[in-house]
Amino acid sequence: MTNKIQTYQKKLDYSYSVGVYTTLELVRSKPEIVKIVFFDPKGKKNRGLEEIISICSKRNILCEQNQKLVEKLSRTGNSFVIGVFDKFEGKLKNETNHVVLVNPQDQGNLGTICRTMLGFNFRDLAMIKPCTDIFDPKTIKASMGSIFKVNCELFDSFADYKRKNSRKLFCFMTDGHESLEKVYFDTKPYSLVFGSESSGLGDEFKTIDQSVRIPQNRDIDSLNLSIAAGIVMYQTTISNI
Amino acid sequence: MTNKIQTYQKKLDYSYSVGVYTTLELVRSKPEIVKIVFFDPKGKKNRGLEEIISICSKRNILCEQNQKLVEKLSRTGNSFVIGVFDKFEGKLKNETNHVVLVNPQDQGNLGTICRTMLGFNFRDLAMIKPCTDIFDPKTIKASMGSIFKVNCELFDSFADYKRKNSRKLFCFMTDGHESLEKVYFDTKPYSLVFGSESSGLGDEFKTIDQSVRIPQNRDIDSLNLSIAAGIVMYQTTISNI
Repeated sequence: MTNKIQTYQKKLDYSYSVGVYTTLELVRSKPEIVKIVFFDPKGKKNRGLEEIISICSKRNILCEQNQKLVEKLSRTGNSFVIGVFDKFEGKLKNETNHVVLVNPQDQGNLGTICRTMLGFNFRDLAMIKPCTDIFDPKTIKASMGSIFKVNCELFDSFADYKRKNSRKLFCFMTDGHESLEKVYFDTKPYSLVFGSESSGLGDEFKTIDQSVRIPQNRDIDSLNLSIAAGIVMYQTTISNI
Repeated sequence: MTNKIQTYQKKLDYSYSVGVYTTLELVRSKPEIVKIVFFDPKGKKNRGLEEIISICSKRNILCEQNQKLVEKLSRTGNSFVIGVFDKFEGKLKNETNHVVLVNPQDQGNLGTICRTMLGFNFRDLAMIKPCTDIFDPKTIKASMGSIFKVNCELFDSFADYKRKNSRKLFCFMTDGHESLEKVYFDTKPYSLVFGSESSGLGDEFKTIDQSVRIPQNRDIDSLNLSIAAGIVMYQTTISNI
């Protein structure tokens, strides 16, 4: 087993979580997909690692001491543990609100958006291809393990997503018709739709359903994608309070 | 000149912007600090690079073709231009609202926060040491050049900042007393105070002035720092509409 674990590549059918916090989320949330956990004995007094080892023991997950492999896969060299898992496919729920990312490119943004989603009660994420890799260890790290609690489904095109998911669509664009703080998020289920980091949503999204802008000044072209998504999810929460 | 430009280190008294967008912000916003611009002839048809070269010519900024150096300093190898500049010190304004980051650690977060600040009309940033390096090329890249428009001042401690800046303080903590959407940001000037990525603000901030929480559920420990700051700055904007 040990010798077969390679540095991450998209084509592999497994990936790994790096670090105590993320690996703890993995073994807690999705023990059934964990192939093996490797730890560095230097971290043995770390409470989180103790808990990981204890969960592995209870759930019959292989757990192996292997300092070299942990160092190799963690890159930065300051992590104590790696959790290797089989990639999994999610399936969106029809009755819940979704976040839809059209062609997201940045792994950090994607991971951060997953983390924010959990904080504001969103569990279903659609990604329209081409898109960055949700299983890349960088995405997983930025998500702080949140990706193990999010249903993520990929679609070939936005038309494909729309055909399979009939609902209210809020499309976020810097020149959207309505300003965010005036929008009521009371038609459920709905989807929050965001474009890519480099080009946002195309003009065709202006008339698909309701286009919305975040009230920002013109000193910047746009907000960072994960910031925009965070602000919108916050607004959906407070508009329901 | 060329031979003296080194890969970035914190101790150097210069840094550099990488890429067209960021370098354009540099030569537009702070031409007086630019030492030299290097470009890769491969990018000569890029409109942004054309504009950079034209601004350099008008303002007597040295502009030199040097493919090798651009490749070396840009790391990823897909940037056309590097702008080398002298580090500069900012000084907070007394009459404006501030963002205060206590011990921020992550360069990406810091850069993203600068970008968001401009979008929501904040121009003054205090950082409490120890803190990450605002001049690191990674910070500058994440800021999309916004750091050239933000006044950033460093302080040895929060007490030091507080002594020099008398004003209303909103301290953001996951267990703050008031929920963000209920807060009025009408006492000006004020400061928005955020803790570090790993540990947030200490308990002593609960009673300094007004402590505030972002209404999020307990599925995550906390929001990412740049997301939290983005949500708060958005709320200050809409509470004034």
